[in-house]
Amino acid sequence: MISKPFAASGSHSELEEGDRLTPRFDAAGLVTCIAVDAKDGAVLMLAHMNAEALALTIETGEAHYYSRSRGKLWKKGETSGHTQKVVELLVDCDQDAVLLKVEMGGTGAACHTGRRSCFYRRVPLKGAAADARLEFTGDTPRFDPAAIYGDAPHQH
Amino acid sequence: MISKPFAASGSHSELEEGDRLTPRFDAAGLVTCIAVDAKDGAVLMLAHMNAEALALTIETGEAHYYSRSRGKLWKKGETSGHTQKVVELLVDCDQDAVLLKVEMGGTGAACHTGRRSCFYRRVPLKGAAADARLEFTGDTPRFDPAAIYGDAPHQH
Repeated sequence: MISKPFAASGSHSELEEGDRLTPRFDAAGLVTCIAVDAKDGAVLMLAHMNAEALALTIETGEAHYYSRSRGKLWKKGETSGHTQKVVELLVDCDQDAVLLKVEMGGTGAACHTGRRSCFYRRVPLKGAAADARLEFTGDTPRFDPAAIYGDAPHQH
Repeated sequence: MISKPFAASGSHSELEEGDRLTPRFDAAGLVTCIAVDAKDGAVLMLAHMNAEALALTIETGEAHYYSRSRGKLWKKGETSGHTQKVVELLVDCDQDAVLLKVEMGGTGAACHTGRRSCFYRRVPLKGAAADARLEFTGDTPRFDPAAIYGDAPHQH
């Protein structure tokens, strides 16, 4: 599916200050990806991409990820309609993470639980960490996951 | 250093819909962490936390990470003064990622290259991914890393 593989990283300086895209995939062949809403910058989700998912995202402008639990490439929204049109794609200093600014399709819910964001619970600060009781932020589900995914709750 | 270990995850439903913090550390003992600016939501950096870094961050309200390259716990800003005071800490649906909303200390530069954000290069869309030429966003260095870190460019 990829027309051409990514080049290998050059020197430390080329990696951080150069203009070549040389992603540093981890031992599992993945980079980490943060998706934020292009409108207001809200963090929607964190996911992973293999080389094919990254190349397809760049080349099509539609977010593709690699599901670690299902072991396969996945176009965001292919099951649920919650697509992500990429407005801007950035790479970090050491090129092992990417940031997508996206326009959500469907109800605007990026999370498979039906919520806008996967980050819907707050951890209170300054208390004993192991005893923390999570507080819900009020980001309530916009769709019923069971109605869309059936018995496969981790599809998106 | 940790007063008490985190509890193990319960059922799938407890993990995603419950109010207990049961972080799912990966094989290396880490969760992924996104830090954003509490003022405007700009994504500053992506890093990792082991159980001790996560507990210290929650208990002190100051961001602590685990450096994979140096193999040790690290308080953000301990070398450079670019501390991160945590205003809000959120956990994601399957509890393997956290989101910090922070107030930056020092010059406001979160990246070890001296820039505000680690995401200072844009990948053009709709072209051949392997041939991409990165575009700098204009987030220019606020300090000289060599003057602070000397020969240890990956300290923060």
